[in-house]
Amino acid sequence: MSKFSREIKKIAIYTSGGDAPGMNAAIRSSVRIAINSHLDVVGIIGGYSGLLNGEIDQLSQRGMANIIQRGGTILKTGRCPEFHKAENRKKAADILAREKIDGLICIGGDGSFTGAHLLWEEFQIPIVGIPGTIDNDIWGTDFTIGFDTAVNTALEAIDKIRDTAASHDRLFIVEVMGRNSGFIASSVGLAGGAEEIFVPENPASIDKAIEKIKAGAARGKTSSILVAAEGQKPGRAYDLAEQIRKKIGYDAKVCILGHLQRGGSPSAYDRILASRLGAAAVTTLLEKECDVMVGVQASKVVRIPLADAINKEKVLDNEYLQLASILSL
Amino acid sequence: MSKFSREIKKIAIYTSGGDAPGMNAAIRSSVRIAINSHLDVVGIIGGYSGLLNGEIDQLSQRGMANIIQRGGTILKTGRCPEFHKAENRKKAADILAREKIDGLICIGGDGSFTGAHLLWEEFQIPIVGIPGTIDNDIWGTDFTIGFDTAVNTALEAIDKIRDTAASHDRLFIVEVMGRNSGFIASSVGLAGGAEEIFVPENPASIDKAIEKIKAGAARGKTSSILVAAEGQKPGRAYDLAEQIRKKIGYDAKVCILGHLQRGGSPSAYDRILASRLGAAAVTTLLEKECDVMVGVQASKVVRIPLADAINKEKVLDNEYLQLASILSL
Amino acid sequence: MSKFSREIKKIAIYTSGGDAPGMNAAIRSSVRIAINSHLDVVGIIGGYSGLLNGEIDQLSQRGMANIIQRGGTILKTGRCPEFHKAENRKKAADILAREKIDGLICIGGDGSFTGAHLLWEEFQIPIVGIPGTIDNDIWGTDFTIGFDTAVNTALEAIDKIRDTAASHDRLFIVEVMGRNSGFIASSVGLAGGAEEIFVPENPASIDKAIEKIKAGAARGKTSSILVAAEGQKPGRAYDLAEQIRKKIGYDAKVCILGHLQRGGSPSAYDRILASRLGAAAVTTLLEKECDVMVGVQASKVVRIPLADAINKEKVLDNEYLQLASILSL
Amino acid sequence: MSKFSREIKKIAIYTSGGDAPGMNAAIRSSVRIAINSHLDVVGIIGGYSGLLNGEIDQLSQRGMANIIQRGGTILKTGRCPEFHKAENRKKAADILAREKIDGLICIGGDGSFTGAHLLWEEFQIPIVGIPGTIDNDIWGTDFTIGFDTAVNTALEAIDKIRDTAASHDRLFIVEVMGRNSGFIASSVGLAGGAEEIFVPENPASIDKAIEKIKAGAARGKTSSILVAAEGQKPGRAYDLAEQIRKKIGYDAKVCILGHLQRGGSPSAYDRILASRLGAAAVTTLLEKECDVMVGVQASKVVRIPLADAINKEKVLDNEYLQLASILSL
Repeated sequence: MSKFSREIKKIAIYTSGGDAPGMNAAIRSSVRIAINSHLDVVGIIGGYSGLLNGEIDQLSQRGMANIIQRGGTILKTGRCPEFHKAENRKKAADILAREKIDGLICIGGDGSFTGAHLLWEEFQIPIVGIPGTIDNDIWGTDFTIGFDTAVNTALEAIDKIRDTAASHDRLFIVEVMGRNSGFIASSVGLAGGAEEIFVPENPASIDKAIEKIKAGAARGKTSSILVAAEGQKPGRAYDLAEQIRKKIGYDAKVCILGHLQRGGSPSAYDRILASRLGAAAVTTLLEKECDVMVGVQASKVVRIPLADAINKEKVLDNEYLQLASILSL
Repeated sequence: MSKFSREIKKIAIYTSGGDAPGMNAAIRSSVRIAINSHLDVVGIIGGYSGLLNGEIDQLSQRGMANIIQRGGTILKTGRCPEFHKAENRKKAADILAREKIDGLICIGGDGSFTGAHLLWEEFQIPIVGIPGTIDNDIWGTDFTIGFDTAVNTALEAIDKIRDTAASHDRLFIVEVMGRNSGFIASSVGLAGGAEEIFVPENPASIDKAIEKIKAGAARGKTSSILVAAEGQKPGRAYDLAEQIRKKIGYDAKVCILGHLQRGGSPSAYDRILASRLGAAAVTTLLEKECDVMVGVQASKVVRIPLADAINKEKVLDNEYLQLASILSL
Repeated sequence: MSKFSREIKKIAIYTSGGDAPGMNAAIRSSVRIAINSHLDVVGIIGGYSGLLNGEIDQLSQRGMANIIQRGGTILKTGRCPEFHKAENRKKAADILAREKIDGLICIGGDGSFTGAHLLWEEFQIPIVGIPGTIDNDIWGTDFTIGFDTAVNTALEAIDKIRDTAASHDRLFIVEVMGRNSGFIASSVGLAGGAEEIFVPENPASIDKAIEKIKAGAARGKTSSILVAAEGQKPGRAYDLAEQIRKKIGYDAKVCILGHLQRGGSPSAYDRILASRLGAAAVTTLLEKECDVMVGVQASKVVRIPLADAINKEKVLDNEYLQLASILSL
Repeated sequence: MSKFSREIKKIAIYTSGGDAPGMNAAIRSSVRIAINSHLDVVGIIGGYSGLLNGEIDQLSQRGMANIIQRGGTILKTGRCPEFHKAENRKKAADILAREKIDGLICIGGDGSFTGAHLLWEEFQIPIVGIPGTIDNDIWGTDFTIGFDTAVNTALEAIDKIRDTAASHDRLFIVEVMGRNSGFIASSVGLAGGAEEIFVPENPASIDKAIEKIKAGAARGKTSSILVAAEGQKPGRAYDLAEQIRKKIGYDAKVCILGHLQRGGSPSAYDRILASRLGAAAVTTLLEKECDVMVGVQASKVVRIPLADAINKEKVLDNEYLQLASILSL
């Protein structure tokens, strides 16, 4: 957490990394609070790539109408490996100076925050981060924008599969997002009543799952749903299905939700969180504090040093997995 | 919070008061955790009325299949004014004794908890409450089961109205539930981008709303959505519409969501909360603690004396209303 | 149905009357087919009022991106009583001539078609109508754009109420749109399993409904849902509830869906119908035929004289009402 | 189409093959109409396998409450290769005789109808078929029960992906059901605004799709969605993605909807169709006609010889594919 002295007259907002539902609600909130505080506000289109290309648009009060309910991000987003090079960050700083931008609001995940943190460290550009990622894997905030929506989206899919599972006496594997973290999988699995949940942190052995399926079948249970976080590459559910087929001859049906989990209208929770954090980011800059992420802990808005948000690891609590395991007996 | 010494071998679960999405997930969790702890579990059908009529059914592991995603309550519910009479509570205690029920789990709101508290005070029947009401107006828990779903349901309605509002240059009033509390209205209003929110705690003057509508129109804003908590009787939105018509001649369109806010498949948040609290209620009884409500504070499960949950008033934070007011400018 | 000889080089599209989900899909289809046929295409903003004010915007291929799934209409709409005056229609014709517009596509209901028909009759402006109204009350087409979505929207509301009805032993009245026609009410009632359906064409006596409710209660049925088309003014459901309360003392809960039925993302059926009719309207103009509505009969696209669409009355088939009545026993 | 003379006093209903949303609405309708006609009605649990095992349950008026909105089938379903053997069909006929079942209603697809047709041919058991399959690949009916819901389910997925596609400049491939027929894919593709649709009937060359993607990119189009019917085995979308990656280096994201398309609450259209056909099936038996499928043509209920429904091929009209191709330019 750092203090700065520059007077803030003009700020720029951008979204970066994977998109998440609720990013637009955060943009709307930041823009309207900023304009209400007599700031000039611009948007950088397409994250760090857009910054390097000088793709910067004026944002207005009216331009924020009817976006609170939209998935995706009106500012577009993307990953930008070029930003790892110091020379490109220098270029970005020059563009920001040329555009007379006094402060930045970065909506994204830890990769995005790394670039933001360096812009402050290397060029003293005041910057505040807002955690926007469906994965919920950011240290320092109980929830990230987009997580609640993504979980509900995956849950709707499970509910539909449950209809057909109950009609058919079958085994289903639903692959959800979360390459490196099991937050989505464990919430979806608990809320969806899944029989087994595979998360990266705690690789449930396929053998244990098979034991459970067999024990359930012996008790008269005729259908099961397994939830699996995607592995290092999407499609892992097919591998699980193949292993199950080989070991006990069951024909598991596979459903890979993929990027549909990123879309959809944001849930109430995500819109409220985004509205609060969008406002808090502007307030933070106005209070001349930066190099922080605004987040939520115990329902209160907090400020966390960006370095902590980037470097500390948010650990998956085992409570959900354990509870899901007992409840699906 | 009280301790008791009776050994728990058989428990009964019931839902009481207005139904809320997620009640079934709480029932499922309590039943499965109880059976997993070698307890005998029965359900009382229809709340306190059912108890007085001895309507008690055995609950089983398998009977809990495929209910986690269902709205309503498989145990039925209702209000029971007869339970205010001591003689009827005596009758209930006799029935519970006859059925050899050692502990009760009551899922409902503060009215339901009052009956529960009296059963403990008057007859030493160990009882634990689970907050299940869409209104979120229970002291001691950040959230009640059903609130998140109800807010999302009302929000979907607002989103649909927003489509037509944007096409038509019109004023809409959406009436949501919350006779005595503005939790639903303020969350829905903030998440839905409403221009004005009418809550019981803080009766926004209609004149202030009209000023805002006129100022918005002057700035080129062509459509507005107002959110109003129902008043002492449903249909209040028509009164607001009539006042607006009389004062500025605008023809406001009215939508009264009513009980549809109680229905629908519970959200992920409500299912997870219900699963956690359902389990915690059983654990509490097994630890020989009672006359408490299990709730959630800062994402942790807590135990709150029933008397506090009943008597203390949960105050609506103005943050949402104020933020909504600025963001809808 | 009339033929004309003018060469079509530039067309204008507008939406008029109440908005309906799928109007955007029709606009997208007409615009893209027209541009693909090397026509110049403009949009009139806000229906006949916009035409009188000369509010005309260029429409482009790219401008149609990402609108197929949006409710409402990007061209805005409204009612325009001024257009009933011949002098205003003259003014409109002048504006169209000045803008060198050779043909019009009007998306709306019978009121909108009347204006369109007069523009042809009085000023020989070639015009084709597309039936876009949630009410489905246009003669000559099996379905209008928006009807399927509106029915599904109302049905979702019924399903949610069903959750709470089944938990509570209660009577519900759901008021749907359809001031003068019972198409929505009868489809929603049949699909929703309603116990009684009140439509304008066939005013079910409240006494008959009460008999049915009492008979159901006698058979052990504990909850009922009635569907009522709005009457001459919205809020009629409260009158029905009051009558039932007076006659048999039941406390019916009311839900008034109102304009939320106009919103929401259009259903697959409505998008496909809109895409087909949007294309057919352009083709019709290119084939130098006009003063017709394009509609759908037995899944085939047809052309119907506008005068017939306006003047003939589409009669509600009793099949749905009768089937619903038996099935809800 | 055949006539029979046996008096119908008791009928049995079963669902067979893949489940489809709306099957429960059809069951409800058949049961209630039958009981209203003073017939005795039983359900066979689990299709032909259940029949061979004598799994037959009494069905009642009340048992049909609250199922109209449920996906799946309360009678369970499945495929039954044993029924291809004459000896097993003989066994089934004996069981039906023993249970004094005078007529059968079979809800399913062409595989299911084949068994039904043989029961009539070989043992003169009167039988009527109801087309219930999400694939819509049954000759003689414009629509099958479940198709409309499945298309809308897949469409919701596309809409969510569209959010993220528009934020990210990316290529997506959505795999939908339809191993042998492109009805789902072509409707979903047209309604979803897909850039290319791959159907089994008309294997779009991957090269043509690539040309289109490149041409779109040249025009400034930054994201595309392709819809592909599953191939001979699910997961084909990964092959397409791999080919695209190899040929033009684009990284296409894959989403495989799988069995979630079978689930969900049936749409209004499917519930109404199911209610009409369920009633019509009973009426057909009461009129002593059998060996037919009841279906819908031009919105009217029709009776089609089962042999035609089984043997004739419903051809995919190219209209949707062609229209989608122009509209996605």
